[in-house]
Amino acid sequence: MSLTAPAQPAVVTTDEIFAAHEGGKLRIELARPIDTRRDLAIVYTPGVAEVSRAIHTDAAVAAPYTWASRLVAVVSDGTAVLGLGDIGPAAALPVMEGKSALFQRFAGLNSIPLVLDTTNVDEIVETLVRLQHSFGAVNLEDVSAPRCFELEAKLIEALDMPVMHDDQHGTAVVVLAAITNGAKVLGRDLAGLRVVVSGAGAAGIAIAAILLEVGIRDVVLLDSRGILSSHRIDLTGVKAEFAVTSNPRQIDGGPAQALAGADVFVGVSSSTVEESLLETMSDDAMIFALSNPDPEVAPDVAGRYAKIVATGRSDYPNQINNVLAFPGIFRGALDAGARRITTAMKIAAAMAIADLVGDDLAADFIVPSPFDERVADAVAAAVMAAV
Amino acid sequence: MSLTAPAQPAVVTTDEIFAAHEGGKLRIELARPIDTRRDLAIVYTPGVAEVSRAIHTDAAVAAPYTWASRLVAVVSDGTAVLGLGDIGPAAALPVMEGKSALFQRFAGLNSIPLVLDTTNVDEIVETLVRLQHSFGAVNLEDVSAPRCFELEAKLIEALDMPVMHDDQHGTAVVVLAAITNGAKVLGRDLAGLRVVVSGAGAAGIAIAAILLEVGIRDVVLLDSRGILSSHRIDLTGVKAEFAVTSNPRQIDGGPAQALAGADVFVGVSSSTVEESLLETMSDDAMIFALSNPDPEVAPDVAGRYAKIVATGRSDYPNQINNVLAFPGIFRGALDAGARRITTAMKIAAAMAIADLVGDDLAADFIVPSPFDERVADAVAAAVMAAV
Repeated sequence: MSLTAPAQPAVVTTDEIFAAHEGGKLRIELARPIDTRRDLAIVYTPGVAEVSRAIHTDAAVAAPYTWASRLVAVVSDGTAVLGLGDIGPAAALPVMEGKSALFQRFAGLNSIPLVLDTTNVDEIVETLVRLQHSFGAVNLEDVSAPRCFELEAKLIEALDMPVMHDDQHGTAVVVLAAITNGAKVLGRDLAGLRVVVSGAGAAGIAIAAILLEVGIRDVVLLDSRGILSSHRIDLTGVKAEFAVTSNPRQIDGGPAQALAGADVFVGVSSSTVEESLLETMSDDAMIFALSNPDPEVAPDVAGRYAKIVATGRSDYPNQINNVLAFPGIFRGALDAGARRITTAMKIAAAMAIADLVGDDLAADFIVPSPFDERVADAVAAAVMAAV
Repeated sequence: MSLTAPAQPAVVTTDEIFAAHEGGKLRIELARPIDTRRDLAIVYTPGVAEVSRAIHTDAAVAAPYTWASRLVAVVSDGTAVLGLGDIGPAAALPVMEGKSALFQRFAGLNSIPLVLDTTNVDEIVETLVRLQHSFGAVNLEDVSAPRCFELEAKLIEALDMPVMHDDQHGTAVVVLAAITNGAKVLGRDLAGLRVVVSGAGAAGIAIAAILLEVGIRDVVLLDSRGILSSHRIDLTGVKAEFAVTSNPRQIDGGPAQALAGADVFVGVSSSTVEESLLETMSDDAMIFALSNPDPEVAPDVAGRYAKIVATGRSDYPNQINNVLAFPGIFRGALDAGARRITTAMKIAAAMAIADLVGDDLAADFIVPSPFDERVADAVAAAVMAAV
């Protein structure tokens, strides 16, 4: 397998990036032209009053005759933006615009970015509840842990629509797809894998959760202080919960203790991992160094110790890219009229992504290309079937 | 002048209206294609981080590199929707979508509809303050009076961006343009006109205010109980204020007392006016029967007593349509970087609309067609010059 970066994509320049952002990345277009006074009388006053009256009489009329039922709000408070951290709502907006663009590009869903000038969980919930008739789903994005867990849970309760924090579940779904296919390449049984997840933030917790859900028994989570175990007295909330539900051997220590004999390393921590520790992994190791833009370990180094290497970068093989998951998940949920995005729907999405690789499956091709046009359709269909 | 409805537009059917609303009236499109991994790396991670970092360092970078600075939020709580009244946010959404479509169609501005599930003025302000980095201007729409006056005033204070309640000021601007041109047709001096405004809600108050601002001295307002005067003990808030600032003769009574000898009748009340009272107006009368879909008096009846007749309908001459005003007003304000939409800007907009009629000026052509493509540009330029 080749682990050197291919010539494409060439280096992207700052000028090129700013030019591509000029005026923003989204446009509002009319679904149908307004060219005559008659068109005006149909789409605006007096014609529109008939539609409003019908919705007032029967709320179910809103879904087919407004854009809201298939509109995804991409919502962030700007507290955990990419690798930049808590940069606030205004600076987060370009990322949210990009995300909305991806919803349109990959799932044909309308999407608007909404950035919030509050980091108070209850205020964010209150704001979205007040706006709830304006959209049909919420994609939470770049909200810091552990607030993101509380926020997602409260929004799911408060809103009668699909809500998903993509940094958690989108990542988890694609990682599950990749591990599933990696195990196939290596001829390993998924349930028997020993997995180490480095990073117990949004992505790490969700990855651990979905791996446990599909029956992988030995998942060990690491945070900056070491392995999550029930011996740790410094843990609260979700981490305290996973200290018990993961780590079945209840081992203690740090990366060295976690990685010894492990089959899979999943890095979502923005830290680095020492080469000497990778050497202690099993012979059939998989290394997913997903931190962006700098992986926990360089792919060529990882390749010395692992049979399968994946990163979050587009310039190496096996890119673990959320765009494989979230467009299809939301479209499937919306098309099905689902009020919740369940674990079963997420697992179905992962299996659909994994299955699409088909006969092309290889150590350096465990997930489809983000530009494989079949992906969103396949994921949406699998999600709908799992409702 | 012909006051019979022309053959066009033909009757619009309910089927046609619902077909035109299927799936909603707006679409999100990408400003630039995303076709390669390289495109992805530019508009999303890792490239977008450069833009976010730049905004975090210098907030002024947000305007040129996100869509928010030229995005108009069309905001409603659904309390005064068209002629339907308080039908709530979900039923109001088709109207707000239509309004957003008009912003794109007539001013090339992006616009998103946001409907609010609260009618509490302070909660609406709070919600929009939390969302303030998501858009660049607020068009308030279909908010009931007198709450709309308080809401607009509080939003103007709370938000560092142009805010305008279009039901007030859009209507007032077009009425001012129409009266200005009507006076020209009749060879009358604007300041000397005696004007009666029937309806002291959002539109009526704003019309009275702008007419007083341009120097029309004798403006009399009517609400459902009669003429606003300082003798009325039942008035509070904005109405109490206008009972003093309008009605210089401080007359009392109802429509009969108001209309006797009046030069202009502006109806924005959804009530009717008796034909016998129109007969008491001056010989050079103008009748603007703007209630929609049913004017206060049928245009052919009004034509017996007035030299100039206008309505809010597209199927009669002289349609007083807000779409002549709001697209250009917002574009001018945004292009100028204005933080407020001032009275001077509104008057400039009205004069620009009036001027565009040019040599075509006639009793049955006192305002341009909404499809006159010059309108928004002329209004925007006038508004910018008035900043």
